[in-house]
Amino acid sequence: MMTAVSNSVSGEDRLIARYFAPLAHHPGAFGLADDAAILTPPDDCDVVLKTDAIIAGVHFFADDPADAVAQKALRVNLSDLAAKGAKPAGFLLALALPQSFAESWLAAFARGLQADAEAYGCPLMGGDTDLTPGPAMISIAAFGLVPRGAMVRRSGARAGDAVMVTGTIGDAALGLKLRREPQAAARWRLDENMRGHLIGRYLLPQPRNAAASAVRAHASAAMDVSDGLVGDLTKLCGASAVAAEIEVARVPLSDAAHGAVAAEPALIEAVLTGGDDYEILCTMAPDQVATFRTATAATGVAATEIGRIADGEGARFLDAAGKRLAFARGSYSHF
Amino acid sequence: MMTAVSNSVSGEDRLIARYFAPLAHHPGAFGLADDAAILTPPDDCDVVLKTDAIIAGVHFFADDPADAVAQKALRVNLSDLAAKGAKPAGFLLALALPQSFAESWLAAFARGLQADAEAYGCPLMGGDTDLTPGPAMISIAAFGLVPRGAMVRRSGARAGDAVMVTGTIGDAALGLKLRREPQAAARWRLDENMRGHLIGRYLLPQPRNAAASAVRAHASAAMDVSDGLVGDLTKLCGASAVAAEIEVARVPLSDAAHGAVAAEPALIEAVLTGGDDYEILCTMAPDQVATFRTATAATGVAATEIGRIADGEGARFLDAAGKRLAFARGSYSHF
Repeated sequence: MMTAVSNSVSGEDRLIARYFAPLAHHPGAFGLADDAAILTPPDDCDVVLKTDAIIAGVHFFADDPADAVAQKALRVNLSDLAAKGAKPAGFLLALALPQSFAESWLAAFARGLQADAEAYGCPLMGGDTDLTPGPAMISIAAFGLVPRGAMVRRSGARAGDAVMVTGTIGDAALGLKLRREPQAAARWRLDENMRGHLIGRYLLPQPRNAAASAVRAHASAAMDVSDGLVGDLTKLCGASAVAAEIEVARVPLSDAAHGAVAAEPALIEAVLTGGDDYEILCTMAPDQVATFRTATAATGVAATEIGRIADGEGARFLDAAGKRLAFARGSYSHF
Repeated sequence: MMTAVSNSVSGEDRLIARYFAPLAHHPGAFGLADDAAILTPPDDCDVVLKTDAIIAGVHFFADDPADAVAQKALRVNLSDLAAKGAKPAGFLLALALPQSFAESWLAAFARGLQADAEAYGCPLMGGDTDLTPGPAMISIAAFGLVPRGAMVRRSGARAGDAVMVTGTIGDAALGLKLRREPQAAARWRLDENMRGHLIGRYLLPQPRNAAASAVRAHASAAMDVSDGLVGDLTKLCGASAVAAEIEVARVPLSDAAHGAVAAEPALIEAVLTGGDDYEILCTMAPDQVATFRTATAATGVAATEIGRIADGEGARFLDAAGKRLAFARGSYSHF
C-alpha cells in the first residue's frame, strides 16, 4: 500500500488549495494546479514588472494583523505600478512562514490578500510557500500593463516642470514613531483620531492606482514615494539629470502630521525623509497641472504642486524664509 | 548643507549599482535605474510566470558557496520554465541578506547569478534587497515565453501515453544525505568521483532548458521533478485524471546512485521520493518517443521511458517482480 501516495495531498498542497486557490481566479493561473501561470498581454502592451518583499520586524511588526500584513505586501508593489502608469494584471507570492505559524494567521493573511486582489483587480497567479527558521517574509512580484512604450519613467523630468505629489506626506513615518514610542502621542498633542490616522497609514499603505491613468496622461516623470520624499525626489532628479526646488510649506500634510510638526518642529525631517508614504511623486509641464489635479481629484485623491524642476542637480528643500533645509539622512536605506 | 542628499547614494544603491546593474543588460530593465522594468512579449506569445524561493538552512546550507546559491535560486525557477516548454525571458530577484553578510559573499552571489543569466539567456529585470534578522532568503520570479496557448500543462496526459524522464533521478536526494552524513559515502562504497557527482547534483541543479522546445513539440503533459518522482508523478496523474504504472528498474540512475542503491537497497525510496532532481517528467503518445529522445539527445540530455499512463488514478511503482512498492512519504513537502 502506498500510503504516502494515497495520502499525497501534503500539508502544503492542502493549505494552498484551501487558502490561496480561491484568489487565483485568473484563467491563466489554472487554479494554482499547474507549475506555472500564463499571462497573455493584449497586443501593443508592455508588461511592467516589479518585486518588493516585506519582512517581520523590518517592514512590519510581527504582531500586526495578518490581513494587513498581506495587504501591505501587495500594496507596496501596487504603488509602483500606479506610479509607472500601469494597470495591475496579477502577482506571484513567495511566502516564508515561521515554523510556529498558526493556521488562523494564514487564514487571515489570505483573507486580506483576497480583499486587495479584488479591490485592485490584481489576481494571484502563482506562489511558493515555505517554512523558515527566521521571521515571516512575504515577497511579491507584481505585473501591470501599459500601452507599448508608455511606462512613465523616472528620467523624463525637464527644467520648468512642476513637481507634484498625491495625498499627504509623512503620515506613515510619524505612525511608525508612534508604534515605537506610544507616549509621543501626548507630546505631539494628538487626539485619538489623529493618532489612529498616523498609525493606520503605517500599517496599511493606500497606493494611488486610481490615479495611474492620469499619471500616464500628464506626467513627464514619476515614481512612488517609498523611501522618503527627499531621497526619492533626489533619485528622480538624478535619473532625469535635473535639479528640483521644493517649498516645504507646500508639501501636503494631514491634520495629524500638521499637529505633530507644530508641537515638535524637528519632526519635519521624519516627515520628509521617513518613507513608507506610497504616494505618487511626479513632474509635468505647468500647463498639465490643472487637468492632472482635476483627474486625480475625480478619483478621490488630491494632487499638490510642491515646487519646480530646474537645470542643475539635486533636490533642494526650502523653508518659508527661502533657507535650504539640511537633513541628517536623505532617505531610508536598508543597508 | 544637505549632507544626506549630496551623499544620497545609499549603501543599498551602491551595492545594487556595483553588483546587480551589470546583470540587467535587457533594455527593459533600464539598468535597474527605474522603479520597474518592462517586458514586451512578441505578439502571439504568452508570458509564463513562476516564483520559487530558497532559504539558508532549508533549501541550501548556509556555508554553500554564494555563487552556487545564486545559481540554485535561479535554476529551480528555470527548471519550471523548461518543463512548461518556455524560453527564459528574464527574472526579478528579492534578496534578503542576514545582517552579518560579507560584501565578498554578495560579490560571489552576483557572479554566479551573472554566469547563469548569460548561460540561460535570462537577464535580471529588477530586484529588491533587504537585511533580515533571519537566514538568507532568495526569492526569484522568472518569466518565459511560449507561443500563445502552447504552455505544456500537467493535465494533458492520456491513457496509453509513455511516461518519460530526462537525465537521472535521485542524485540530489543522495547528495543531500551525504552532506548530512558524510560517512555514508564509505557505506555506499562510493569512490570520490561518485561522491562528488551526488553532492554536486544537490548543490547545483542542471535544469533541462535545452530540451524545452522538444517538450513543447512532443509532450502531452509535463512538469519538473522537484519534490520527488513519486509525488510529482502523482500530481501529474491527478491533474490529468489518469493513472501511471512505472517500472522502477527503468528509472534512470547515475552510476553513483546505482552503486549506492546496490550497497543499500532501501535507498531506492530516497531516490524516488527525495526530490531536488530538476529533471523533466513528461508524457507523450508512444509514436512521439523516438523523435523526442533524438531531440533531447541532441541537446546532451538522455530521455528515458519509465512506464505508461493508464485509466484510473494514482502512480504505481513496480519492482522487477511486478510487486508494487510502498513508500513512507510520497514527496517532499515544506509543511
